[in-house]
Parts: sequence; structure tokens; C-alpha cells
Amino acid sequence: MTQSNWSVPETEVVQQIRDRLDGDRTDVLATIVDVEGNAYRRPGAKMLLDEGGSGVGSITAGCLEDELLAVGDRVRETGETELVTYDLMNDDDEDVWGLGVGCNGVIEVLLEPLTETYRPAVEAFFGGRDVAVVTVLDGGERFERGDRVYYYPDEGTLESPDGSEATGWPVDALSGPAAELAARGKAGTVSLPDGADELTVFVDGLAAPDELVVFGTGHDVRPVTELASKNDFRVTVVGFRGAVDLDERFPDADRTVTTSPATVGDDLDLDERTYAVVMTHNFVDDQLTVESLLDAGVPYVGVMGPRERFDRMLDAFEDDGRRFGEETLSSVYTPVGLDLGGGSPFQIAHSIVAEVLAVSNERTPRHLKRREGPIHERVDVESDADAPAQ
Amino acid sequence: MTQSNWSVPETEVVQQIRDRLDGDRTDVLATIVDVEGNAYRRPGAKMLLDEGGSGVGSITAGCLEDELLAVGDRVRETGETELVTYDLMNDDDEDVWGLGVGCNGVIEVLLEPLTETYRPAVEAFFGGRDVAVVTVLDGGERFERGDRVYYYPDEGTLESPDGSEATGWPVDALSGPAAELAARGKAGTVSLPDGADELTVFVDGLAAPDELVVFGTGHDVRPVTELASKNDFRVTVVGFRGAVDLDERFPDADRTVTTSPATVGDDLDLDERTYAVVMTHNFVDDQLTVESLLDAGVPYVGVMGPRERFDRMLDAFEDDGRRFGEETLSSVYTPVGLDLGGGSPFQIAHSIVAEVLAVSNERTPRHLKRREGPIHERVDVESDADAPAQ
Repeated sequence: MTQSNWSVPETEVVQQIRDRLDGDRTDVLATIVDVEGNAYRRPGAKMLLDEGGSGVGSITAGCLEDELLAVGDRVRETGETELVTYDLMNDDDEDVWGLGVGCNGVIEVLLEPLTETYRPAVEAFFGGRDVAVVTVLDGGERFERGDRVYYYPDEGTLESPDGSEATGWPVDALSGPAAELAARGKAGTVSLPDGADELTVFVDGLAAPDELVVFGTGHDVRPVTELASKNDFRVTVVGFRGAVDLDERFPDADRTVTTSPATVGDDLDLDERTYAVVMTHNFVDDQLTVESLLDAGVPYVGVMGPRERFDRMLDAFEDDGRRFGEETLSSVYTPVGLDLGGGSPFQIAHSIVAEVLAVSNERTPRHLKRREGPIHERVDVESDADAPAQ
Repeated sequence: MTQSNWSVPETEVVQQIRDRLDGDRTDVLATIVDVEGNAYRRPGAKMLLDEGGSGVGSITAGCLEDELLAVGDRVRETGETELVTYDLMNDDDEDVWGLGVGCNGVIEVLLEPLTETYRPAVEAFFGGRDVAVVTVLDGGERFERGDRVYYYPDEGTLESPDGSEATGWPVDALSGPAAELAARGKAGTVSLPDGADELTVFVDGLAAPDELVVFGTGHDVRPVTELASKNDFRVTVVGFRGAVDLDERFPDADRTVTTSPATVGDDLDLDERTYAVVMTHNFVDDQLTVESLLDAGVPYVGVMGPRERFDRMLDAFEDDGRRFGEETLSSVYTPVGLDLGGGSPFQIAHSIVAEVLAVSNERTPRHLKRREGPIHERVDVESDADAPAQ
């Protein structure tokens, strides 16, 4: 068993799915479609089951993976998509708690041979486009388990895996609770009326990963790129004035860009999904970069340096006749990072990426023990299925 | 230049110092001894300067390193310890801010040939014992720059590098401000009266790294060990019931231990420096482990799982006639981790290690921009040197 592959980032699992689709092996994809009770992972968690008993990704914390590998072998052989329910609860109270978190609850898993019908998902994901994979779990008369259609929240369209308009599907129904899940990048099972029949589908909203753009090429940049990448951000490193060897120096970056501080706004696609950390260690470069970021209205601008330095930057903006409103400035985080203490370059990077995670997930950083309510945000959808959680 | 070595964890720099001492190369150690103004690293930050222009560790964010490598070559050749001041401030306001944070301020750096006089520092560090390296910067009549003595806060003793009692040093003076720095693991320059003379020494308090003990061997453990190790914790993984191949499965751990939940308290040195994360995913194993940790009074017990699970654990303790006071229970963090959102194994690990960092550094986790006062905690010592900061 390839132990080291269990705790790979989510992006890495999708990357592996793409690689497998490009290869000619038959792999099996397992996806959690429903969870009751407390479990380590939520609906939408994925695992690739390889021939030979190894896997990529994780669905539980090791409670079920061995069993899944066995079912995976069967699915690979028969080519039939299966829906398997693991009931880790039982009436013996002692046992339930003996199994502990992660090995608790009822978990429903869809296992399918990985085929071309999944390609639109990975293409959207890496193309930066949100998509929901809608897969039939129980099809009534008209559909079979594993039948699939794609919902694109940006245009509200429904497409078949081959890219054609999906016809014959209960389109109206999909504009309801399923679309809501899809638009929020959430996952869950939904029952849809289909004439007199009823269709149970799994809606797997795949939010394209957010982008973290790091401005700067100093020695403090690399641990930021490493941690951001492992935390599922698409990472871009931006260097100025003919910075060289960036690809080599920042192997964790998805791309590197060499440009000028004055043309940042034009050369980069800055939008509501861009999280930026400005750490060029040059005041004027930082100033021009921050100006472009504020103009673009990105949700997070982390600026390395003490608060006074940013105050000076505001003065400099004002000298140039630029004023930014309170709301625009609320996206600025300076000094950058969470207050975790620790002053090594890696510790500073850890606190920066922790802050970006919290902001991108709209969390107030604090101890989970101080938070009220469940850890996983609940999504209530109108359906007779259990409210899926993520 | 070995780019990848700049952002290594602090522990790794000390490890490299040990390796160099064991080898027969002549390396030069650079240490920041004083900082005025804002700088990226604080007094005590270290960098090893290799022959051939590469380095390990970082002192600034790339502003001075090239210059330091050049001075390092000179020190290697002459064998003379040097104290170099870099004044990155000047009267031209524009320029000061143009240089930006990290390339700001006045930085004083001690460069010395790495010799056996430094060995007690690495031995204490890896032996889990706090120590302060006291090095003469300006020796007056009786001492030379680079002369050195070790102060051990646990016993209040002063030793020469060869382990003998240090004689002839102004011992009384060292029990004052220097000892205060040393006891707190802080670093700074201190002036000591030496008869009619005056001695300027650099006190480099090396706090032995805290230990993170992870109980559990599931697939969610590895990213915790990786991140904790890179954040300068000594990492121990504890497995139960003949867990095998732990060293192989957790390469980032400093050690792995296989024991039984009932003997955790006896088999591990649990003390006020032990930070523990309990994630065996087995209720009874977790319960026995938590009991031992609470009995030992460790400062942090992170328990994976929902709050209700821990409430059940408290019920189970009560059934066994065990009650823990409020203060003891305040060390329990469950659900474990900071509230950063994100549910991948790596994201969960990131939030756990962020919490351990905050607790071990006695910080309230929140955005640095919401924190009042300076990022670096100031240490005021009675001396005519500037108050060193870290």
C-alpha cells in the first residue's frame, strides 16, 4: 500500500484523475455521497483505487480504505458502478464510541470505473471554472446508476459528458436544490421528481481552486508557495525586473510570471478569486502592486511589513491623488498572517497561509473549541435526503 | 547558491551546525546580535556560510546574504571573529522606505569560524536542555571578541566550552539581565561591568524545541508530523498494539514509539514542554491517553473529534471515579485545531499545527492586523544596549 499517497491535497487527487484518464489503465473512483453522524471526511471526498491494492486520496481516516480497495477490484472487473453503504453505527453504545470519530456513522460510497464521462470535471477544475458533477444513484425507469450530466453554475447550463446540451433530464428540478449545492461548491444527494418517477442524484459541486498570487522572489517566498500548494491553492509567483529561474526556484508554484509593477493589473487575471501576498521587500514595488490589487477588488491583499509601513503607503497613495474607501481597504491584511508567534521563515509562511485559508473560507480564526455549532458548515437543501454537510 | 536551503527550519540550522562540527570543513557561523528598526529576523537568527558561496538559514530576506557570504570568506581565511554593522537606514526618507521591510534598519552581525567552542550549544539543544551562549563582542582588557561561556538556566551554572566551571567571568553580572534573557530563550546584547572595565556580550538563549507527541498512526497523522517538524517541534509518533513500520511511515518524526495506552505515562517523558495531539480514532485508546496526559499536566492536549465525543469521555472518566478540575481541562483543545475551514487531511493538519504554535507561543490566534502593539514581543532588560526584541 502506498502509504504516502493517502494524505495528498485535494487538488492532487483531481490531478491524478486527469493523469489516469490520459493513461490506459482502468482505475476505480470512489466518492463519498452521503454521511450520517460524525465522519472524518464529507460528501464529495474522493479516492482513486488502483489495481494492486493501493490508493490515492482518502475517504475516512483509514477505517474503510482496505474494504474499499476490495470492492474496487470487483468494480474494475465487472465494469459496474456500485453504491455501497457502510454502517459503522450499531445499537451497542459502547461499540459506537469505541470505533471513534472517523470510524463512526453511516457512510455511503459510490464506486465507478473511471471513464471519459469524468473528463469535463477535471477540465473545468483546472480551467478555473466551477462545475457540478450530477450522477444518478437511483434512476427509476429512465436512468441507470452512474449516468451523468454536468451543471455549470456560471451559465446555468446542463451538458452531457460529451459537451452537448443535456436533454431528457429533469432540467427544472436541477435549477432547485441541486443548483444551489452546485453554485456553492457543496456536495450532497438530492431527490428529483421525474414525472411520476423519482430520481436520486449525487450533486458534486467542484469549486475550482482559488489562486494565491505571491509577489516577490525573496528567500521567504518558497515556504509560502509550498504550503499554499499543499492547501489546494493554485499558486502563482510574480517576479519583477527580469527575475530569472523562477520556475526552478519555486517548484511548488503552478506558474511563475515575470512582469513590471506598473503592469500587474494588465498581465494577471485578478478577480474575486485572487488571494494576494505582497512581499517584494521593495516599497515602491509593493505600492504599485497593492494599488493594482485594490483597483481589481481582490478579496485578500496580505502585505508583509509593519502597520506603519502600510500607513506610509496610504500617504503615498494620497500624494498621488489616490484614495481608497474603507471597504476596499478591509481586504488589506497587514502585518500579514495570523498571530501564532514564531519567527522562522517557515513559521511565518505557516501563519500567512493559515490566514489565507481562514479568509477564503470566511472563518474567524480562533480555536475550534471556542466556536459555537458544528465544525462543518451545514447546507440545508429542500430534499428528502439528509441535509448533506461539508 | 543553494536556493533551497534558505528557508530551512531553525532546528535544521542547528542540525547542520552539528553536522559541520562532526565534519572537517571550516564553516563560518553568522548570527544577528542586534537590530534597530524593523527587520525580517531578530537577534539570534543564524546562517551558516559555506565555502563556495552557499549558505544555510537566513538572516534577512535576501537583502544582506550575498554581502555576508563575502565577509564569511574573509573570516574563514583569517580565522578572526568579526562584528559587522549594516546600516540600511539613511537620511533620505524615500530610500529608507524604498528598501522596504527586511532591508530596513541597522543590523549587527557576528561572524565566527565554527569551532568546538560551539558544540555545547548543539548538545544542549538536541538534549532538550535550555542554554544560553554568551559570547564576547567587546572584551575590554581581559577578554577577546569571540570568547565564550555557557549559562544553563535550569541550574544557574556558568561553564566553559570544555565543560569546566567558568572562572574569571563576571558571574554576578550574568545573574542579572543576561540570565533573564537566557531563562526566557531570548537573545540580545548586554553590557556588564567588569571591575573598572566594561564587557559587551551577546546572550543567545537557545530554548530547546518543544516536543509534539502525536498519538495515532492513521493516514491523517503524516501531514501533522511533516508540518510540526518544519515548524521546529521535535516530533514523536506513538502507535499502539504492535503498530509496525512507524519509522518508515513517518519519516518526518524524530522518533516513533510503540507502546500500550495503559502505559503511556510511564513510557514517555511527559512534561510542561509536551504538546500532544490525540488522534487514534479509537475511543478507549484516546480516553486512556488523555487521562495520562491530564495526569502529567502537559500544556496542550488536542483531541480529534467533535465536542460531544469528549463529553462522553468525561462521562467515562466520571464512571471510573476520575474528575479533572477546570484548570487541568483548560489544556484540552477539542475539536482540535484553529477554525480555518478546509477539510482535506493537509488542511486539517495545517489548522492543528497552527493551534499548537499559537498555544506554545502563548498567542491568541487572530489576524495580526487585529493585534495591538508590535508583532515581536519586546524584552526589556536593564542595560544600556537597546532592548532586544524577538
